[in-house]
Amino acid sequence: MNEKLLAFILTVAILMSLASAFAQTENARSSGQAPSKSLVERLGYSADQKLLIVHADDLGMAHSVNRASIKALETGLVSSSSIMVPCPWLPEIAAYAKAHPQADLGLHLTLTSEWKQLRWGPVLGRERASSLVDSDGYFYSLESEAAAHMDLREAESEIRAQIERAKTLGIKPTHLDSHMGTLYQNKALFEVLMKVARENKLPVRLSKEWFGRAAFMTSVLGPDDIVLDRIISIEPTVTAEDWSRFYTEEIKNLQPGITGMIVHLAYDDEEMKGVTSEHPNWGAAWRQRDFDFVTSEAFRRVLQENQVKLVTWREVGRLIK
Amino acid sequence: MNEKLLAFILTVAILMSLASAFAQTENARSSGQAPSKSLVERLGYSADQKLLIVHADDLGMAHSVNRASIKALETGLVSSSSIMVPCPWLPEIAAYAKAHPQADLGLHLTLTSEWKQLRWGPVLGRERASSLVDSDGYFYSLESEAAAHMDLREAESEIRAQIERAKTLGIKPTHLDSHMGTLYQNKALFEVLMKVARENKLPVRLSKEWFGRAAFMTSVLGPDDIVLDRIISIEPTVTAEDWSRFYTEEIKNLQPGITGMIVHLAYDDEEMKGVTSEHPNWGAAWRQRDFDFVTSEAFRRVLQENQVKLVTWREVGRLIK
Repeated sequence: MNEKLLAFILTVAILMSLASAFAQTENARSSGQAPSKSLVERLGYSADQKLLIVHADDLGMAHSVNRASIKALETGLVSSSSIMVPCPWLPEIAAYAKAHPQADLGLHLTLTSEWKQLRWGPVLGRERASSLVDSDGYFYSLESEAAAHMDLREAESEIRAQIERAKTLGIKPTHLDSHMGTLYQNKALFEVLMKVARENKLPVRLSKEWFGRAAFMTSVLGPDDIVLDRIISIEPTVTAEDWSRFYTEEIKNLQPGITGMIVHLAYDDEEMKGVTSEHPNWGAAWRQRDFDFVTSEAFRRVLQENQVKLVTWREVGRLIK
Repeated sequence: MNEKLLAFILTVAILMSLASAFAQTENARSSGQAPSKSLVERLGYSADQKLLIVHADDLGMAHSVNRASIKALETGLVSSSSIMVPCPWLPEIAAYAKAHPQADLGLHLTLTSEWKQLRWGPVLGRERASSLVDSDGYFYSLESEAAAHMDLREAESEIRAQIERAKTLGIKPTHLDSHMGTLYQNKALFEVLMKVARENKLPVRLSKEWFGRAAFMTSVLGPDDIVLDRIISIEPTVTAEDWSRFYTEEIKNLQPGITGMIVHLAYDDEEMKGVTSEHPNWGAAWRQRDFDFVTSEAFRRVLQENQVKLVTWREVGRLIK
């Protein structure tokens, strides 16, 4: 083969390869598909890295929740957390947020009030958000009741008001999620959530695994929306004795990709027993078990042994331009 | 003296006595003075009886407050209590009120939010009561700040809304008082309080001893308004060691008449330490000391030894037609 032929073949090969790459990019862009790089790769890790966001929900709900969650955030094994703006202990967590600007704190957008003795209602007030409250003037107890009664415009105004109120108190949220999944209940609510999240350039807690039972999500999401690969969340079917084993097995079986692990932390004290009275699921003892596990040496060890790296929503959110 | 003369004299005497009684009644009515009988006598006791309303403030503020106050109400040594409608643990105390219709529960009308980590705001919502809230959207911390900023119409609407909201939740208040004395700050606010109280036919916590430093009160009050003879309230100048001695001396020195004794009950637990952090006055340990005293055998004994009878606001309120 002479040199001219070799140069010609190489030139053709380079041009074909460039054309192919261009076509792939164009194809991805025009079909609305996510870029071919995985979320883990976009975060700068190799494709086989196992990333985990250990996330404590419900901050602001009670002093017991705040105390336990702050303690767990500060041990380093809980990497992220989210705040319920309509709840009474918001000032405590807002002061913490201001004093700890690096803490990874999002907003746990709240449209339900599920306990009996301690309840809360809309930031907008009952009159401006009358479709969001029950006959006692608090948010509905169940997410399905809330979704069934709510005026979409009031729901949108309320979640915007929660974000504004958080900012007024000095909180700079790193992400959004939805207390009791109320905003994932149907397509219309999910569209509201995503619209508000995109405007605020904030990532939303979403899992690819949810698409099977909520097919509407894929029709709302675009290529720029961030979706975790999987979310781990303990369920009432797990007995107290199996608590550690459940989480340990989940970590051992973790696949490459980015996973969210949702925990609910509090101490099993009088305050929390009062909040969650007559409701063992997600109750005071449940939250103490979660706290005990995420602050345990066993959790630290299983994360190390399985090369799981903890990440935050702040790191993920940086991908949003 | 013959029989006719005797009959004439008796008839004249009876007529003169009737005329005098009529004139006295007319005089009292036209001059706007209180009826000559003391409050104690109007309640059916002899004029030298010592009556005491032992009253726990701040119900609904926190679970710790509710637990301690309910316990003290049920021991029998606290005879009355009042509820803060804007506070987070209102549902717990409303459920208690419904289950215990004989409990003497009034409303502790609330226009201030004095702690740092747990705060609350208007039942009306921030927009409809914007003059009542600070830049963080909660009631002002101090009663003087609240009084200085408030629009009187908003204050009146808010206290009416608190009464309505209590009724919606099944509370049938026996009396009214004012958290941190905000509604006793000036004549205009006091007029609002008395107007709303009279319309609702509810007695208001007032003491004759206050008239010296709030002379406007007498110009607002009429003959039908109920005023206690004295109110006992411990102050920050009393040391922890002198707590029992202070109350014991007050009871020993009690004069005939009707006295209110205001206590603030809670347990010195993590929740209450969190509520009252950096604020020892009326703080968690203070409230534990009050709880310890009002549930003590020493308190029971000193009441007995000094022939002090406990009464309720419900009994007092029955005098209002």
